[in-house]
Amino acid sequence: MFYFFYCNMAVQKPSTPRGTRDFGPKEAAGRKYIFSTIEEVFRIYGYAPVETPAMENLSTLLGKYGEEGDKLLFKILNSGDYLSGVQENEMSSPDPGKLALKIAEKGLRYDLTVPFARYIVQHRHEINFPFKRYQIQPVWRADRPQRGRYREFYQCDADVIGSNSLLNEVELIHIIKEVFSRLSIRISVKINNRKILAGIAGAIGCPDKMTDITVAIDKIDKTGLEKVIMELRNKGLSEDSLEKLKPVLEFAGNVNEKINFLRAMLKDSENGLKGLDEIETILRYFTSTDNSINIEPDLTLARGLDYYTGAIIEVKALDVEIGSICGGGRYDDLTGIFGMEDVSGVGISFGADRIYDVMEQLSLFPPDVSGGVKLMFINFGTVEADYCMKILRRLHEYRISAEIYPDPVKLKKQMAYANKKDVEYVALAGEEEIKEGMITLKDMKNGEQNRFPADELPDRLMKK
Amino acid sequence: MFYFFYCNMAVQKPSTPRGTRDFGPKEAAGRKYIFSTIEEVFRIYGYAPVETPAMENLSTLLGKYGEEGDKLLFKILNSGDYLSGVQENEMSSPDPGKLALKIAEKGLRYDLTVPFARYIVQHRHEINFPFKRYQIQPVWRADRPQRGRYREFYQCDADVIGSNSLLNEVELIHIIKEVFSRLSIRISVKINNRKILAGIAGAIGCPDKMTDITVAIDKIDKTGLEKVIMELRNKGLSEDSLEKLKPVLEFAGNVNEKINFLRAMLKDSENGLKGLDEIETILRYFTSTDNSINIEPDLTLARGLDYYTGAIIEVKALDVEIGSICGGGRYDDLTGIFGMEDVSGVGISFGADRIYDVMEQLSLFPPDVSGGVKLMFINFGTVEADYCMKILRRLHEYRISAEIYPDPVKLKKQMAYANKKDVEYVALAGEEEIKEGMITLKDMKNGEQNRFPADELPDRLMKK
Repeated sequence: MFYFFYCNMAVQKPSTPRGTRDFGPKEAAGRKYIFSTIEEVFRIYGYAPVETPAMENLSTLLGKYGEEGDKLLFKILNSGDYLSGVQENEMSSPDPGKLALKIAEKGLRYDLTVPFARYIVQHRHEINFPFKRYQIQPVWRADRPQRGRYREFYQCDADVIGSNSLLNEVELIHIIKEVFSRLSIRISVKINNRKILAGIAGAIGCPDKMTDITVAIDKIDKTGLEKVIMELRNKGLSEDSLEKLKPVLEFAGNVNEKINFLRAMLKDSENGLKGLDEIETILRYFTSTDNSINIEPDLTLARGLDYYTGAIIEVKALDVEIGSICGGGRYDDLTGIFGMEDVSGVGISFGADRIYDVMEQLSLFPPDVSGGVKLMFINFGTVEADYCMKILRRLHEYRISAEIYPDPVKLKKQMAYANKKDVEYVALAGEEEIKEGMITLKDMKNGEQNRFPADELPDRLMKK
Repeated sequence: MFYFFYCNMAVQKPSTPRGTRDFGPKEAAGRKYIFSTIEEVFRIYGYAPVETPAMENLSTLLGKYGEEGDKLLFKILNSGDYLSGVQENEMSSPDPGKLALKIAEKGLRYDLTVPFARYIVQHRHEINFPFKRYQIQPVWRADRPQRGRYREFYQCDADVIGSNSLLNEVELIHIIKEVFSRLSIRISVKINNRKILAGIAGAIGCPDKMTDITVAIDKIDKTGLEKVIMELRNKGLSEDSLEKLKPVLEFAGNVNEKINFLRAMLKDSENGLKGLDEIETILRYFTSTDNSINIEPDLTLARGLDYYTGAIIEVKALDVEIGSICGGGRYDDLTGIFGMEDVSGVGISFGADRIYDVMEQLSLFPPDVSGGVKLMFINFGTVEADYCMKILRRLHEYRISAEIYPDPVKLKKQMAYANKKDVEYVALAGEEEIKEGMITLKDMKNGEQNRFPADELPDRLMKK
């Protein structure tokens, strides 16, 4: 049965599936640099690593990302005879969605948050709360691929579970500052609070339309005020409500004026006032004890994700138009969907793929992040190679990246290889060098050449 | 349609799919330590990183791992209306395998080798040959889960493509030595050569039975000589051939005697003699210029994988019974299946999951690999927390891992958290300390407590 495919192989031009990518040495090295930078910051802030499987039971994933999200889940065909439990009539009048649930019980994770919620509930008795965990793993979405949107991409998440303290929000904003400062990316950080959005929905007379208002406001940057109002009118908001909402969206004063304006508007909303207190506490921290970060409260910031209930954070790069490169917020009932109530959490997620694009566009990668190598020995034949191998061993003891060209081919070919691989130094040892215990070192940048005792090589390279 | 599932959620006990695992802080930290150790060694030996997508087109994967392997591939249901191209009669008399190919065009990668072969062919014009790449990524197999065998596990591969030189084999054996020496795992390294196995198959009169002989010999350690002979008899080897094969399998002399015995037996096999030359060249290197590694030639070493054509390498842990923890070999035609001929490669693969088990059993993880944190500030309230946050900022500048307990709860609760998290030091600042700019530091191991100017904290911790 599979033989047909095998025979076809010779004519088949191999490729990756649509929306997925290979990463060659340079890209992979750049990505590893981003991951390890983020990971080290997470670590020094006291976050511990967790990893979950790529596959989750579909029952864990379905219903968590809205109807649209369910459609974007990659489902994995049951192994073995996947049709065994399917009735004949289900096969002959097939409803693709219903049949899918019968023949596919597992799916690829869509984000890191739901698997983490599942992890918390499953391991609740082993976990040391408040639990600070980070997780850097790929996720998969059957989205229509387009520029900057892939079907496989990485998320880099840090969350604190089981603490209501706003210190967590403050620490997460510090992590954001630290990561992007290490990567040399200039950013703007916007914050808002879902409680304020809920308060506004109440104050304009439609507390049940909070989600619609949030989703509509989220688009204000892209579509403008008029379209947002139109969308909300279609969702059933009255003209009276819309008139009350407009001044909120148009208000142009400074931070304090905005907060005072809202404090008056939300005076009857306990929740709304709490949201204002929370945002003020966070802002006060960054104005009084630490003004290295410029945080802007933005009442139109909504972020689409439904599960946020408190602070919302969004980070954009200042020097590249690319959408948000990091975001997050507080959610008060993430684990409720798995039957564990009253666990508050707050987290952020870095978009490594977009960060890569920003760094590539602005040429921010340090020169040594290239997947290259420090030194290569030229291979002139067995005797010379044996001599070089001994020196090579010593370089490796010093943890200097170095290799010997494996075949004794023409010098020109070996030099071309070294050039292409961003080798910094080439080392040569011919008959004469071997007799005298010397080595000749060539600097590939400026072409300078030096001959000295081979023993000195590790020290000389360490200094460069 | 999905609503039914959502409602069921409350009663559902969340779990990972069969054969997959979560990794909590301690395990994840241990795994990261293994990956980064292997990765650093790959890097200093001049290998550059490559990453390929988790999903491959099924046409890339099918037919590459034998009929058994095809069955063990995880197939991904096409997204959208996956039934649209399926005829009614295909649905009503379903052949599960045939239908699967219609409704699933992608699969999860089964190993890193075939995706890498696909990568080479696809990117042949950008690649700098000889191409030394490493790749550390998970793979998935729908195997029956059992102790030590998982459906998702990591492979850590290094390969050189486009060079016939035996120096590559030598360097890879050095990498093996270096990795396990850094991880403090004592190992035995066995090598053999498929050309010798081919030569033997020829010399005993059944050159076409090379694969059967290889597969059977591969089991000799587990089942013993008698069963191997029986299996080969069933595969159609004549009694004459079996009589000629026995002395090879039973031969008990030292390395040189073994090689001399084979040189006589394979005197008419050009390929067999070449295999002997290759194994001798590698052994000579390690006896003459570098005897830090004890390599044992083992003529019964066959390794199941079909694509090996030259050297075969297998590594076992000396102090734990667990099967091979690293293996590899030379393959002369890996990319041929994708229409690119005559590209020789040689590679090794570390089994990170088994290596983790070995290190866990022998308690080989260094004490600082625990996902823990160096210091935690006790939180006594807003004023104290603000004071500590400033010191915390400085510790982070020194890249010391440190955190503050987020909530001002009872001291006992905060200390219990610190204990469970393997925090090394706890720092306290009350009214008095704040007035005098001091900090009190408690060593969690011996309970020692010291009070000193807060400014000195980073330096004192750096020294510890």
